[in-house]
Amino acid sequence: MLDSMLGRTYDAQICSVAGTLELVGERWTLLIVRDAFMGARRFEDFQRRTGAARNVLANRLNTLVEDGIFRRVPYQEHPVRYEYRLTEKGLDLWPVIVALVQFGDRHIYPGRAPVLLMHKGCGGAMSDHRMCETCGAKLGPRDVEARRGIGGGMVASATA
Amino acid sequence: MLDSMLGRTYDAQICSVAGTLELVGERWTLLIVRDAFMGARRFEDFQRRTGAARNVLANRLNTLVEDGIFRRVPYQEHPVRYEYRLTEKGLDLWPVIVALVQFGDRHIYPGRAPVLLMHKGCGGAMSDHRMCETCGAKLGPRDVEARRGIGGGMVASATA
Repeated sequence: MLDSMLGRTYDAQICSVAGTLELVGERWTLLIVRDAFMGARRFEDFQRRTGAARNVLANRLNTLVEDGIFRRVPYQEHPVRYEYRLTEKGLDLWPVIVALVQFGDRHIYPGRAPVLLMHKGCGGAMSDHRMCETCGAKLGPRDVEARRGIGGGMVASATA
Repeated sequence: MLDSMLGRTYDAQICSVAGTLELVGERWTLLIVRDAFMGARRFEDFQRRTGAARNVLANRLNTLVEDGIFRRVPYQEHPVRYEYRLTEKGLDLWPVIVALVQFGDRHIYPGRAPVLLMHKGCGGAMSDHRMCETCGAKLGPRDVEARRGIGGGMVASATA
């Protein structure tokens, strides 16, 4: 694990929660990861969606690459430009994002969830346990699509 | 939702992730919630376990009470002193904590998880979907106990 510019805060703790928050606990980072799951890949996409300051966003993206959560993939040659894609490790953050979504749907937007997460295979809703409420399948990030809910949240392409 | 002392950063976004992070995204807050699930109730417990500065910890606890995630319960009368307990809303953060645990177990402590989460009813391990791998029960925070894993993390009383 490479040091971030801010240093690591919770290093003294042998704890998986603290360790994960060292990677994704800085302000903006989980929103950047959220946007990657919603299809964002390029700096401008992340900037527009998060609204984070450009220098902050650049710092966060660099840290996410250093920590193996995003990888840089060139999409243009002259000059070379990169987009950011979730790695397999990054995809493993999906349950964190889903848990944050489901808490917010229940307690911040009750009855008016901004985004609905649905099983691509059969169109069923996703349960609290990340299973399809219709067919019972255990769902991962590639199995789910986001639809605009009654709260009118942003929806882009569905998954990473 | 009451304003925290630092103000809300992500207010412009209609998003359950951003909304939840307004409540629990500040530095230390999710570690405090983690410790509550592990049995911490009193200021000194949280201070010892997190290692957060006392003024920061007091600020975070106040915000968690204002936001309805903790409630204050008097445990002593002269002078009156309070402990902090998770509300039902606070208990709904359990999937967030579990998701952070499971990511850290996989990517930061592979093969040496500091804490093991087990189904109290039958002793089975908890799956990625918060179900018992032995009996198949869907598990909530009151169904699970923490045992010290090979990594030697801290373990207190198991649940809130």
